[in-house]
Amino acid sequence: MRKTALIMAGGRGERFWPRSRKDMPKQFLSLTDDGRSMIQLTVDRIAPLVEMEDIFIATNRDYAGLVRSQLPELPERNILCEPVGKNTAPCIGLGAVHMEERYGDAVMMVLPSDHLIKYTSLFVSTLSDACRLAEHGKDLVTVGIAPDCPETGYGYVRFRPDEVQGRAFAVEKFVEKPDLETAKAYLASEQYLWNSGMFVWKVSTILEQLREHLPETYEGLRRIGAAIGTDQEEQALEREFRQFKSESIDYGVMEKAKDIYILSGAFGWDDVGSWLALGRIKRSDEFGNVVSGNVVTVDTKGTIVQGGDKLIAAVGLEDMIVVDSGDALLICEQGHAGDIKKVLENLRICNRTQYL
Amino acid sequence: MRKTALIMAGGRGERFWPRSRKDMPKQFLSLTDDGRSMIQLTVDRIAPLVEMEDIFIATNRDYAGLVRSQLPELPERNILCEPVGKNTAPCIGLGAVHMEERYGDAVMMVLPSDHLIKYTSLFVSTLSDACRLAEHGKDLVTVGIAPDCPETGYGYVRFRPDEVQGRAFAVEKFVEKPDLETAKAYLASEQYLWNSGMFVWKVSTILEQLREHLPETYEGLRRIGAAIGTDQEEQALEREFRQFKSESIDYGVMEKAKDIYILSGAFGWDDVGSWLALGRIKRSDEFGNVVSGNVVTVDTKGTIVQGGDKLIAAVGLEDMIVVDSGDALLICEQGHAGDIKKVLENLRICNRTQYL
Repeated sequence: MRKTALIMAGGRGERFWPRSRKDMPKQFLSLTDDGRSMIQLTVDRIAPLVEMEDIFIATNRDYAGLVRSQLPELPERNILCEPVGKNTAPCIGLGAVHMEERYGDAVMMVLPSDHLIKYTSLFVSTLSDACRLAEHGKDLVTVGIAPDCPETGYGYVRFRPDEVQGRAFAVEKFVEKPDLETAKAYLASEQYLWNSGMFVWKVSTILEQLREHLPETYEGLRRIGAAIGTDQEEQALEREFRQFKSESIDYGVMEKAKDIYILSGAFGWDDVGSWLALGRIKRSDEFGNVVSGNVVTVDTKGTIVQGGDKLIAAVGLEDMIVVDSGDALLICEQGHAGDIKKVLENLRICNRTQYL
Repeated sequence: MRKTALIMAGGRGERFWPRSRKDMPKQFLSLTDDGRSMIQLTVDRIAPLVEMEDIFIATNRDYAGLVRSQLPELPERNILCEPVGKNTAPCIGLGAVHMEERYGDAVMMVLPSDHLIKYTSLFVSTLSDACRLAEHGKDLVTVGIAPDCPETGYGYVRFRPDEVQGRAFAVEKFVEKPDLETAKAYLASEQYLWNSGMFVWKVSTILEQLREHLPETYEGLRRIGAAIGTDQEEQALEREFRQFKSESIDYGVMEKAKDIYILSGAFGWDDVGSWLALGRIKRSDEFGNVVSGNVVTVDTKGTIVQGGDKLIAAVGLEDMIVVDSGDALLICEQGHAGDIKKVLENLRICNRTQYL
């Protein structure tokens, strides 16, 4: 069966402000040293599994130009523009009806566009196994990550260690982001994996699940699907999408569905969820600093400095984040990385949209 | 007797990097909200005491243009250019021989160009008293500041509380910068004042003291004085000044001299010794932040941010200093304010002179 991929690239990447901006969000930035953007790396990574013509990018209209310029080899019609962000369930449904229209049925990988993976060959092998499993049944397959800390920023998946299909375990349940105590208990139990947001299923399987668990969305998706290739396509998409309830695939489908399998992905995954990720991804100096650009450090440790042309002198800093983006500069204590969104709120309230 | 002033403006102000630069040092910057530079404020402040034609500025050649442009009403010949910095004793001696050449004798106030004083009228009244005392005798008069903390960055002056002349106390001794324990003992004793670097004496008195305590410098100064107004003036200055031993007036004269009196100046003095001074000089917000420029703060307290056009977002900062100067940015933990010079050392070693 044909393998397809839906790469979700509609996010705003606010936690990577001020480099990530409303007109150039995180997935289009290069955070590694190779100059490739996150979305380019995502496409590179699945090249051994999927033909370029079978890769779809779901994004919002404002980013269609960025997708085109960063992925010029991608067929234009594979860029699916959501009229408005409605979270992942409608996004995945939109991908599914396009794939159904084009191929009838297919194996569909769903991938975020803004994660980093260190060991591509291990990733490809895991996804390949997931495809095989998804193709020969009606299972929903997901890839989990073995936790190395009680992270409270991710959803978790509880699996049944004694119920296996090849490398995959049966899923007992999807659970939302836990508090710290719960996360510690999950870690200790050895029966939970992080929900990585990567899924594999057949197009027919996920449409069936959407019909069962999100029937209104499913009906709208059907009307969108029927209009594909007609002169009503744009109108139908606009009309139906705006009416969709905003819903994540995790809450809308995975938490309710049966027959889910999970593979534990051990391929150096990082969701690059905040600037702190740079401390993991990039090589640090002897004082634990990750520094790039025109920077002088004195008595500074554990600090991330992403500079540019402007000289940045960091004196006596510890566990800080400093990011220069030309017109804006962030200086943030690492424990407050989550508060970057408060800066954006402040800018929005003051209508200083040029900085968003 | 005519009153004159020598304002010493040869310093580099490195502790105010990156705003203070080798071609625009601290004394030429405005750190207050009135837009007047430190040296302009110094001149403004003594206007009630001294005619403009009797104010001399000692500086190095590179800053003569800055002095001229910031003090256009000052006679050109009142700008005394040291060929090379030799600390305060030769600087003061140079002023003295120029004043002697012009006026025979005069009362001479010696003032730093980079201090701030809150209550000008109290300052003028103190200096006026000091002038009266200096004029009617051969005393060296200095102005001290009653310490409000055991500061280790200043020299101290021990006075005799029972030996007074008007508002002035006899000085027992000048002492150099103490360690913290000593400074605490000084504070507890109530017999020490901070050495503010402000002095008042007759020109004839200080020249006599230089002859006694720094005879070689005195001889050279005499040769410089003899050449003033001749075509040998420039040559004599160049030749003699380069041979002077580098010496502070405190160590070279004040620590050795007798007949010194000190007035306690209570006029809101601040030597603006580092960026930390801004926390004292400027109004802070409810979280103890002193912020100017294009700045957004989130969960930030006790922090000084001197921004410019570039947006600076400060998130979760505590007791930091952030200064943007266009081409360079300083981010410094307040306890490390003294380490700014290490940044400059680093820049010098790497020959990045554009940032000095």
